[in-house]
Amino acid sequence: MDYRSAGVNISKNDRLIARIKKMMGKAGSSIGHFGGAFSFSTKDYKEPLLVSSIDSAGTKTAVAIAVNKHDGIGRDILHHSINDIACCGAEPLYFLDYIAMSNLDEEIAASLIQGMIESGQRWDVKLAGGELAEMPGVYQQNEYDLVISINGVVEKSEYINGSGIKNDDILIGFPSAGLHTNGYSLARKVVEQTEYSYSTLIPGQDTNIGDALLAEHRCYLDEIRELKQNYRVKGLAHITGGGLPGNVSRIVPSGFEIEFDWGSWIEPPVFNLLREAGEIPEDDMRSTFNLGVGLVAVLNPDFAKEVFNNFPKHLYKPFAIGRVVNKG
Amino acid sequence: MDYRSAGVNISKNDRLIARIKKMMGKAGSSIGHFGGAFSFSTKDYKEPLLVSSIDSAGTKTAVAIAVNKHDGIGRDILHHSINDIACCGAEPLYFLDYIAMSNLDEEIAASLIQGMIESGQRWDVKLAGGELAEMPGVYQQNEYDLVISINGVVEKSEYINGSGIKNDDILIGFPSAGLHTNGYSLARKVVEQTEYSYSTLIPGQDTNIGDALLAEHRCYLDEIRELKQNYRVKGLAHITGGGLPGNVSRIVPSGFEIEFDWGSWIEPPVFNLLREAGEIPEDDMRSTFNLGVGLVAVLNPDFAKEVFNNFPKHLYKPFAIGRVVNKG
Repeated sequence: MDYRSAGVNISKNDRLIARIKKMMGKAGSSIGHFGGAFSFSTKDYKEPLLVSSIDSAGTKTAVAIAVNKHDGIGRDILHHSINDIACCGAEPLYFLDYIAMSNLDEEIAASLIQGMIESGQRWDVKLAGGELAEMPGVYQQNEYDLVISINGVVEKSEYINGSGIKNDDILIGFPSAGLHTNGYSLARKVVEQTEYSYSTLIPGQDTNIGDALLAEHRCYLDEIRELKQNYRVKGLAHITGGGLPGNVSRIVPSGFEIEFDWGSWIEPPVFNLLREAGEIPEDDMRSTFNLGVGLVAVLNPDFAKEVFNNFPKHLYKPFAIGRVVNKG
Repeated sequence: MDYRSAGVNISKNDRLIARIKKMMGKAGSSIGHFGGAFSFSTKDYKEPLLVSSIDSAGTKTAVAIAVNKHDGIGRDILHHSINDIACCGAEPLYFLDYIAMSNLDEEIAASLIQGMIESGQRWDVKLAGGELAEMPGVYQQNEYDLVISINGVVEKSEYINGSGIKNDDILIGFPSAGLHTNGYSLARKVVEQTEYSYSTLIPGQDTNIGDALLAEHRCYLDEIRELKQNYRVKGLAHITGGGLPGNVSRIVPSGFEIEFDWGSWIEPPVFNLLREAGEIPEDDMRSTFNLGVGLVAVLNPDFAKEVFNNFPKHLYKPFAIGRVVNKG
């Protein structure tokens, strides 16, 4: 991987590559060769499963462009990616990024990469390489997409996929900061087609809609490690596109279904603003947005009680959101 | 990974996911959980280096859209990705894909995925998961991007990065089929701004420009395996954005430079058509297009002689393209 692409203006590209090299160097990684290399220590694993995910920040980028704040987008998608593989029980190892733009904007690209590298240092996952592509004609003017692919590892016997879930198990939610990286096509439509704008303050809050929509995707790696270590977590669902029903159903074995205690937890205010301003039917709200729950863990009822009493205070606070029942 | 995304129309998406599952099932892989998992056998490696690459087909997609032929694009980018990591000496293990479109076109997406899966079977590298994103407002109407991230492995002591290259080493080229996946922004400009069109026959050929531009990116995995096994290859360069000078220079240690025997090999006819129709200066031709050389290997002169005499006939035929010299 080389951060070069045929389409990219070479001098702009060379300047940016020099900046990227500097940022990566500070974080202890390097651009690498045609492929990014990662030294994988096998001694800690008997049967390692590599777990990988690829995803983008979706149209959250369009909000970032509208309010010209891009530094969070890199962190958003890295956190999204870490959560995805951590939900399988994996520890993240390294990641790669792909940035494509209609026309290379050096500042935006550097800002995205800086965000990813900083967050990578925080979570001890290295940027091993990436690609920049300038694609006028494919992307709309001034638009861009940022894709991350992440690789992690889990011992095969510790892979988490929800297979042990059964009747009466408890669903624990962890609070999201907002939309995270899903539902932006709908949210943008609401803002653009109503009297609201990104600079409108959310009623009763000192945050405007733009900032609320850009609230960073939370990384739940520490919460997941705690759940694995002390609470024998049976299943983990990262709440992304498809909302709570769409994502929790993916980890529940056939024969069971979920009863959510809708309305029992506090949503970040941006959701109700979107609900009312857009007159969005509740079913669409639930299948599009995380509604304040960024991660769901399924626990045996005994462990669930323990979680509510003893979960470490420096981590996001878990709350009950529903239970597993036999399919009626 | 889930082949779901907030933006995607759910019923179209569900239908497509069912098709993807079927295609993956036939190829012996599955969609996986939040992350795609790959069982990694460590017993064959003392110090495994994971080698990864992420890249897209660039604006070759725009040619595919113009002539409505998409099945090759999936193979193109998979071959590109395999070559990238094979140039580090790595064997490919598995890959993930990310497809983003202005509006989900089920047939195009299925065609792209089918191409990747077929090619994955041919090269024994599994599709472990992917993501579909519908992003109107980010992508131009009817445009799409296809990104692949690939993971492979190499024993650390067998990692190839050109470090042993020295004066008088020989550069061996392997023939490309055409532009592969680079130079399409320039090529499209030439076609669109001249009297030519994608259906114009290339002079003296029975191929039209559209088909010549869509000629598939060749996969050089078998050639690279042969070079590793029998010719102690010192360096391998995949010729992508930046052309021969840009890519070969990446593997040559400081203190050395390359003398190319420009004009000593036969270019596919599409390059001369672009050169003449676009009145493209030769320097730009060389820094934009591969000009008929898809892969370059650097060999000791003795091994180079062997290659010309003994390289297996069923593989792409190597030819001399230049040499390494001390920096003047």
